[in-house]
Amino acid sequence: MARSDLPEGFIERLKSLVGERNVRTGDEVRAMDPGWDPANLGAGVLARPGDTEDLAAVVRLCREAGVSIVTHGGLTGLVGGAISAEGQVILSTARLDAIERLDPVERTVVAGAGVTLQALQEAAAPHGLDVGIDLPSRGTATLGGMASTNAGGVMAFRNGVMRHRVLGLEAVLPDGTIFNDLTRVVKTSAGYDLKHLLVGAEGTLGAITRLALKLDPMPHARASALLSLPSVDAVLDTINIAIGMPGVDLRAAEAMWRPFLTLTSKALGWADPAIDLKAPVFLLLTIGGAEHGDLQNGLETLFEAVLDRHPDVGGLIAGSSLQEEEIWRLREDTDLVYRAFPAAPSFDISLPQSEIPAYLLRLEEDLAAIDPTLEPLIFGHLADGNLHIILNRPGSLDPDLRKRIEAAIYRDIASRGGSFSAEHGVGSKRIGALRATSDARKLDLMGQIKAVLDPSNLFNPGKLFAEPPSS
Amino acid sequence: MARSDLPEGFIERLKSLVGERNVRTGDEVRAMDPGWDPANLGAGVLARPGDTEDLAAVVRLCREAGVSIVTHGGLTGLVGGAISAEGQVILSTARLDAIERLDPVERTVVAGAGVTLQALQEAAAPHGLDVGIDLPSRGTATLGGMASTNAGGVMAFRNGVMRHRVLGLEAVLPDGTIFNDLTRVVKTSAGYDLKHLLVGAEGTLGAITRLALKLDPMPHARASALLSLPSVDAVLDTINIAIGMPGVDLRAAEAMWRPFLTLTSKALGWADPAIDLKAPVFLLLTIGGAEHGDLQNGLETLFEAVLDRHPDVGGLIAGSSLQEEEIWRLREDTDLVYRAFPAAPSFDISLPQSEIPAYLLRLEEDLAAIDPTLEPLIFGHLADGNLHIILNRPGSLDPDLRKRIEAAIYRDIASRGGSFSAEHGVGSKRIGALRATSDARKLDLMGQIKAVLDPSNLFNPGKLFAEPPSS
Repeated sequence: MARSDLPEGFIERLKSLVGERNVRTGDEVRAMDPGWDPANLGAGVLARPGDTEDLAAVVRLCREAGVSIVTHGGLTGLVGGAISAEGQVILSTARLDAIERLDPVERTVVAGAGVTLQALQEAAAPHGLDVGIDLPSRGTATLGGMASTNAGGVMAFRNGVMRHRVLGLEAVLPDGTIFNDLTRVVKTSAGYDLKHLLVGAEGTLGAITRLALKLDPMPHARASALLSLPSVDAVLDTINIAIGMPGVDLRAAEAMWRPFLTLTSKALGWADPAIDLKAPVFLLLTIGGAEHGDLQNGLETLFEAVLDRHPDVGGLIAGSSLQEEEIWRLREDTDLVYRAFPAAPSFDISLPQSEIPAYLLRLEEDLAAIDPTLEPLIFGHLADGNLHIILNRPGSLDPDLRKRIEAAIYRDIASRGGSFSAEHGVGSKRIGALRATSDARKLDLMGQIKAVLDPSNLFNPGKLFAEPPSS
Repeated sequence: MARSDLPEGFIERLKSLVGERNVRTGDEVRAMDPGWDPANLGAGVLARPGDTEDLAAVVRLCREAGVSIVTHGGLTGLVGGAISAEGQVILSTARLDAIERLDPVERTVVAGAGVTLQALQEAAAPHGLDVGIDLPSRGTATLGGMASTNAGGVMAFRNGVMRHRVLGLEAVLPDGTIFNDLTRVVKTSAGYDLKHLLVGAEGTLGAITRLALKLDPMPHARASALLSLPSVDAVLDTINIAIGMPGVDLRAAEAMWRPFLTLTSKALGWADPAIDLKAPVFLLLTIGGAEHGDLQNGLETLFEAVLDRHPDVGGLIAGSSLQEEEIWRLREDTDLVYRAFPAAPSFDISLPQSEIPAYLLRLEEDLAAIDPTLEPLIFGHLADGNLHIILNRPGSLDPDLRKRIEAAIYRDIASRGGSFSAEHGVGSKRIGALRATSDARKLDLMGQIKAVLDPSNLFNPGKLFAEPPSS
């Protein structure tokens, strides 16, 4: 189905649909920021339709011409979900950037797929509202991309992931029709809920054009603390103490293992006498509430409760927003890791919390058996069991080594009730892991559903599925 | 495809699969409680497999024999989703009643589809945990049925609906294979999330056998108040004041319009000087927290804040658990309405909150134009926009009148961003409304997906779809 060049006259027809200046080719494309992966812009042709109708017209044109489509949001994906090749067209949602309706009574928003997370956060804040999901890439990640990849972030344990925030959506399907299910209600039991197919489909079933999202009240104040703890069990215990504490509204519980914090703290020149950097694991907590002073007291009480049960704990309560930024930067500035180990192999798994201690022990042994110098840099959203694992190796691994490491990382994730891909998705780089860890019926059905919605494999070929799923 | 009798020897083969005493026929079936609709037991033959493997064997037997299957949970559905007819087999999940794993560290549970909501509530409570969904039919509603119908209830505005609570599931598909996606994590971005097709499919795509659910911390104490208010706007305002109040953890915000409360308060002989029963609308609030006394103070503060903005408000803070039960009974004992108007026509819609005042004004006019004596008894979960509307008419409506009334109720729900079926589902009784209010592409795709998973229309024929969706 795939072709490596565009049919004659295609660019001209594209320009007639979306306007000359909304079609970019050649140097114009090469001058753009490709995001995480230079191959994202491989197609060399990009169309930026200004509304859903125009986008649908582009899809129909591509369908007639047999040109496949790679939809682009903010290009913050890490698994090659947005890479494109010659003969394809990049469909940019950048101009679908209107926040159409933000309703503080309903606590909902209807917005275009191209709106960035940060733009929505800034629009919601004056109403005392919050998007309920936050990501370090907030400045570029778009709502459409976040829905297509089912983005997670630091608040999933309390607010759910993107799937749980989407009340309704509109999408252009591969046949060029518009699917409209823009409800703004959390309760709907009206037949198969097909928006949940599009959420997380990574652009393989169509292009999301508009979304209705749930918003949440934003606390007036927040306070953060960094704790050093003797074990993962102590971290889990601390999270549960925080969740159960009256008056404490836990908003983030990020764990960092020693090798990770050692690297980021050194790179940032950070140290604090209250934190023993030799502790095995660290927990960054943020709580929300009405008054900053009460929150600081809440963190004190929490710290004492934890100290009662784990005498080895150390803790630092951020006394200023500068100090809060500093301790958050230790966690969020993951570029520091990639600067130390450029293009390091990274993994994004989730596990039920009770499984984490045994999993990590097992993984450590398996990695050591492969190569005793392999050190996993681990951090993650511990309240929802999401661990990011980056290896201390620059660049791609030798294929055989990679295979052995992947086998070690993914081996028992499914049997432990976890997921090999917590929030980064499958894209083009995790297809092998999807196939290795998923229920066989699930893989069959995915292919059959793809064939129903996109029989010509027009949308994002080579992502999620290795081969055209059916013919 | 459907047959009106069972093939020869079928019952014997069924018995050999699940054991003689787990197949019920004839008088044994007639002696059973049919739940809301006597037609539920119409098939006259019921099998109760004891585990997933046995259930899968029953499905394969039915498939070979061309016998269609109606899966039964607690039979609390109101839209004919569980009715069955001669020639079909009822697949009961009653024996899939094990709470297999309840993990207080993870705050998750893995349980069989036949576990009742109340059984799970009782198992979770000693760990300080709550299911996060509550329904008046908690004693009979099963987890499998709640997932199949995407149950909602009073806490959806804060906790989401059943779809948002399901972390993983196992199901037997119409081809007799077992689909296993029993993750216990909130974060998974691992291809199409097919559990979201099974959730809300009302038994048309297979039988859910096991579920992994998220649990939430249960507050130590709770307190409730009943308010009489001058308008829906005032109710919405009150809910938002409550949601924004520090230290107030709003757990329920149930509205009752005057005709509804007039009926239930009279039937229960309830009155209180603090509540003006002539007010247009009433709000029942429950908040949770650490100390009952603090919560009562919280409700006082809330009441004063509302009084500042709406001088016509009246309010009663329940001073004892007996009084709390009394005011909750005014809302939950909807049988009182059906006793006054047996088998009264009822509707279950959801609307974005901002749309509710205009919608109700419009509906009132339209109903009055049809028949000035028509009075809708309205109550609902106002924080999520879910309104239940019961008409003051006993029994079925004349078909022409029903058509006009349905048109009036459903007319502008989709354009307002709402849903014609908030939490009751479609079953066999709301197929017309589904077809009248849904996006055409959604209806097409539903049929195509049904054809992929259940090409022989084996599971729950005549529900969701009027006709076999394809051949």
